[in-house]
Amino acid sequence: MLKPPELDRLSVVLVSTRNPLNIGAAARAMSNFGFPRLQVVSPYESAFREARSAVGAAAVLASAAQHDSVASAVAHCSLVVGTTAVRTRNLRHPLRRLEDGARLIRGRLRTSRVALLFGSEKFGLSNDDLSHCHWLLRIPTSEENISMNLGQAVAVCLYELIRDSKAPAAAGKTPLAAAAEIERITQMLAEALRESGFLDRRLVGDSAQRIRRLVRRLNLPRQDAVMWLGIFRQIVWSLRHPERQPPPGN
Amino acid sequence: MLKPPELDRLSVVLVSTRNPLNIGAAARAMSNFGFPRLQVVSPYESAFREARSAVGAAAVLASAAQHDSVASAVAHCSLVVGTTAVRTRNLRHPLRRLEDGARLIRGRLRTSRVALLFGSEKFGLSNDDLSHCHWLLRIPTSEENISMNLGQAVAVCLYELIRDSKAPAAAGKTPLAAAAEIERITQMLAEALRESGFLDRRLVGDSAQRIRRLVRRLNLPRQDAVMWLGIFRQIVWSLRHPERQPPPGN
Repeated sequence: MLKPPELDRLSVVLVSTRNPLNIGAAARAMSNFGFPRLQVVSPYESAFREARSAVGAAAVLASAAQHDSVASAVAHCSLVVGTTAVRTRNLRHPLRRLEDGARLIRGRLRTSRVALLFGSEKFGLSNDDLSHCHWLLRIPTSEENISMNLGQAVAVCLYELIRDSKAPAAAGKTPLAAAAEIERITQMLAEALRESGFLDRRLVGDSAQRIRRLVRRLNLPRQDAVMWLGIFRQIVWSLRHPERQPPPGN
Repeated sequence: MLKPPELDRLSVVLVSTRNPLNIGAAARAMSNFGFPRLQVVSPYESAFREARSAVGAAAVLASAAQHDSVASAVAHCSLVVGTTAVRTRNLRHPLRRLEDGARLIRGRLRTSRVALLFGSEKFGLSNDDLSHCHWLLRIPTSEENISMNLGQAVAVCLYELIRDSKAPAAAGKTPLAAAAEIERITQMLAEALRESGFLDRRLVGDSAQRIRRLVRRLNLPRQDAVMWLGIFRQIVWSLRHPERQPPPGN
């Protein structure tokens, strides 16, 4: 888990971005994942101005810095990482999968500033941009379509950086009904099955076990146990009194 | 790692999406991460038609199915998961963080169909939509801005599903120069430092060790060792022959 000073040490650097919507989307993902530092290098014409005037992620965009060169945008960073969809062209740089690269970036953010570069929508990072990078990061996209939308690529990279591999697995688990509740429901269901004629009136050992297993497989939430017991009790009562109205408040 | 039949078992279900760009972005992320099945429920007016006519991710959009109800879109799925930004409203459903929920979804995809629901940009999933869900998934966004762009949320969820926690850490590592090469460079650098007057001509023990450590800390790539040796050799030669042209092809 990254802490606020670490989040603040990452610069997201958008190089030669053409579409203001993409600058806005990058800023929104940064805001979603708590990264405040956006640097924009030579955006196309008015893209940066347009993005700034759009709604959402206002704080990230308002504090974004515009640069004329990659060198200026990454000047304070001791690790510079480029992103690429291509897998073979840039053999001059080590190429890391996002899962692996993010681990290294997180480690560096503990003490140092890191820049993460995203190239233009059409051409990606140029060889000149890449010469500023220590290594390259690739998102593990499918071979059939390796090229991601810029805003989505930023979102995925930042998510991987803040992702918590130790997030508790039990979070939000439903408390299940206790064995005694389950058994009461099982008995009432068996009663309903007998009364309905689904089972023969003489419930032999094997059928009882089948019903018990059937109910156990439901993984009944504790909060629903009373409800299910009431349902089967009502069914049994109605089966036994076909001519009468149901009793009040059963 | 999900295999193609597993990728095919996930339905991405967009409910009441308003913006055709978001349908297109969702389809593009699906294509990037290899998920072919898109279901669209009650999109706003012409959003689906417009999205289909846009470029990119054509295959996913062309085969997308349009439904009038969530029930119809998820009919063949044995696990239905809703996505939400909200953390407290929907306590009727278990709420899982993406890292944890994706693990469960991957497990189910081994044998069964799973639906992953995304609500409208403005309102998310309605209580009626949610009643079809077994549990809810939330992306671990920052408290300050929990609401993600739809296309980015789809991209992040699908990335988490295909992400490989065992991706090799050493992939793309640069082979480093061997000790003998490093030592030749060290000697040549020391020579250059002496010739330039940076160090006293008599290089005492301590300085030699400092230079050795200095060069070791560079982690010199093997492919660059010859280049560095050549550079220092040239510098030494030039320092010793200030009046002469550099020798050809040193």
